[in-house]
Amino acid sequence: MIDYGRFLSRSGESMQGSAIRKMGTLMAEVRDVVSFAPGYPAEDLFPWRAFGEIAAGLLSGADGSVLQYGPTRGYLPLREAIVGLMTSRGIAAGVDRVVVTTGSQQGLDLIARVLIDPGDLVLLELPSYTGAITVFRNAGATLAGVPQDAEGLDLDALDDVWSTHQAAGRRAKVLYLVPNFQNPTGALLPLKRRQSVLDWARRRDVLVIEDDPYKDLFFPDMATEAETRPIAADDRDGRVIYLSSFSKTLAPGFRVAWLHAPEALAAKLEVAKQAEDLCSGGLDQRVVFEACRRGLLQAHLPALRQHYQAKRDVMVRALTAGLGAAVSWPAPRGGFFLWVRLADDMSSESLLPLALARGVIFVTGSAFFVDGSGRDYLRLSFSAPAPARIEEGVARLSAAVAELAASTASAPVRA
Amino acid sequence: MIDYGRFLSRSGESMQGSAIRKMGTLMAEVRDVVSFAPGYPAEDLFPWRAFGEIAAGLLSGADGSVLQYGPTRGYLPLREAIVGLMTSRGIAAGVDRVVVTTGSQQGLDLIARVLIDPGDLVLLELPSYTGAITVFRNAGATLAGVPQDAEGLDLDALDDVWSTHQAAGRRAKVLYLVPNFQNPTGALLPLKRRQSVLDWARRRDVLVIEDDPYKDLFFPDMATEAETRPIAADDRDGRVIYLSSFSKTLAPGFRVAWLHAPEALAAKLEVAKQAEDLCSGGLDQRVVFEACRRGLLQAHLPALRQHYQAKRDVMVRALTAGLGAAVSWPAPRGGFFLWVRLADDMSSESLLPLALARGVIFVTGSAFFVDGSGRDYLRLSFSAPAPARIEEGVARLSAAVAELAASTASAPVRA
Repeated sequence: MIDYGRFLSRSGESMQGSAIRKMGTLMAEVRDVVSFAPGYPAEDLFPWRAFGEIAAGLLSGADGSVLQYGPTRGYLPLREAIVGLMTSRGIAAGVDRVVVTTGSQQGLDLIARVLIDPGDLVLLELPSYTGAITVFRNAGATLAGVPQDAEGLDLDALDDVWSTHQAAGRRAKVLYLVPNFQNPTGALLPLKRRQSVLDWARRRDVLVIEDDPYKDLFFPDMATEAETRPIAADDRDGRVIYLSSFSKTLAPGFRVAWLHAPEALAAKLEVAKQAEDLCSGGLDQRVVFEACRRGLLQAHLPALRQHYQAKRDVMVRALTAGLGAAVSWPAPRGGFFLWVRLADDMSSESLLPLALARGVIFVTGSAFFVDGSGRDYLRLSFSAPAPARIEEGVARLSAAVAELAASTASAPVRA
Repeated sequence: MIDYGRFLSRSGESMQGSAIRKMGTLMAEVRDVVSFAPGYPAEDLFPWRAFGEIAAGLLSGADGSVLQYGPTRGYLPLREAIVGLMTSRGIAAGVDRVVVTTGSQQGLDLIARVLIDPGDLVLLELPSYTGAITVFRNAGATLAGVPQDAEGLDLDALDDVWSTHQAAGRRAKVLYLVPNFQNPTGALLPLKRRQSVLDWARRRDVLVIEDDPYKDLFFPDMATEAETRPIAADDRDGRVIYLSSFSKTLAPGFRVAWLHAPEALAAKLEVAKQAEDLCSGGLDQRVVFEACRRGLLQAHLPALRQHYQAKRDVMVRALTAGLGAAVSWPAPRGGFFLWVRLADDMSSESLLPLALARGVIFVTGSAFFVDGSGRDYLRLSFSAPAPARIEEGVARLSAAVAELAASTASAPVRA
């Protein structure tokens, strides 16, 4: 038997599987589990009939390029539609700055390849999206977490963290953040802070990576579209690399997302993508383009907002009824997640096996913290399960928390 | 204006665009160009009607998972179908060893990530596939080219190259090769040499990366299926990582390929893929699966073989008639390419602008050589253009070669 260890690269040796993906595997193995783990969109909301009609037209064979290799940057009409979308978001976008990516995960990976050397410093929110953490970690970056308050990134803390590292000779190249309905906290960064982020980035000469998958999914009862204005909209000097996706608004199975970067970087990111997968799927890109061109995407958004808002309400009501003071959470004003804190120093890692035994799963908080903290948090996705399943899942979770609380209370007190 | 240079990683600074992809861009910019450059399959042969029917069924909405995020390893029924395919190729495959990839390009990239550190030695054929060269170069590998003779990889040369580097303290981790209808030479490595490669790899403790996109596309007039038996078929100790693809036999727009690796490495490659794009396209994977399940793929292969064989004949006839002794090539027994050598020390780099001016493009030979040689070669793809366009393109090429020969002959002789 060959020992493959001696063939591995340093990156191959050290890379870690995603906690969220592990939950997905776990879920597939257990019967009747309610999954609050991955941030999956609701499948019953996908516009199936429209997709079917669009695909039928595309597969007529009239345009052979639909299933041929395509340009690495993406299908040009789609890139133009993306410029239109970005313009409606207030961003002065350029088609030469758009690269279509195989999901935003690829966009993050390309950025890390082009910008990050081992040892480079990356600033990101505490907690932050695990997919971004993984990418930067794989690139060998030093990750520095910046605390958030109830509204999101704390600007004073940001400069403190930057200064500490700067003083130690570590220059931060990039700040990664999710200003709209942050993953996992759900926070909506106030407009004033967004401007401050930009001013700060200019002053400290740092690039901003703005990851914006949830922008269109604000909840009308607590947020407005104006409040979701991207940081990139006020970027005058090419400081921001912006990422967004069709995965949450159309369907993730198409693997179609995009990034928008200063031209010089877009050219580098394109070359990086050549080596990663040559191009994204041809049929997928055209279905997404047609969904944009026909107005399907825009027409679909109000229903999505109502749907996810209603599911948030179901989960909030169930948690309040089932768990009361044992947990707390900031009310999400959009997105897919409820960021729950356990009371009484309970740990979500201890909770997980109890929850799994009762048929409910979530992602433990520590997966989102680059500083090893967060064990009293858990992320619950309310996006995919039907309302009755959300209620069932929260009931199971409540029983698991009660069990954990009882065992914690009866455990011997340590000095 | 920001100088982005100081934000780039070493890899971001040094990465080079693909010569083939550049040709694609050139092609898009010139009117009425005959492209012999990228190895595109013939679009008119894609089974459009069957794909349309399959997609319509999949998009009924009955199975929501079609457009949802999926497992990183790939859609399980597709992985099982791939095991079936590999079994028919003589390989003792295991479903836990299969990872579906977003094209074989991603497979190569994942392998480089998991195995190659900067400075690691990679052995590959001289000439070799540019997409592999790029991936290993991006990973910072030292690339050592191994000469080929008319039948492919030269085993004595392989051990010589290995020994030279070994003596200099550089250990080779992997040997990358394309035994079936090599890209760009078209060579079909004899079965005896395949066994020798395996014996050599065991003796020298090197992993073999066998890239096999063209296996099913042998030409019945000059090759048999038995002659395409993969090296992996005789791998008893987990020495070979095997890659293959549906891009050349079904359609590249689906971006569905696979790799098959020893379990320990497959697990690492899966984790690497998580960070790269989470999963490959859901609809795409299911269309490909259905094409396998319904027997569409197998039924389609004889027509593909005849089609590409006939196109090879068209190109060979046209080249013989138009260029005579000015060029030579080994007769390809399968695949997409004619590997042409220019006589009289003409350079394909000098030929390219003349050819482009006359409306025909190809890939210059030097793109395939890691040692900087190959300037008297060009790669012509006969796979995509219609027969009349092949004839037109070769006529244009012949005129360009005549022009180059005339200018070379009239140039002053250098001492």
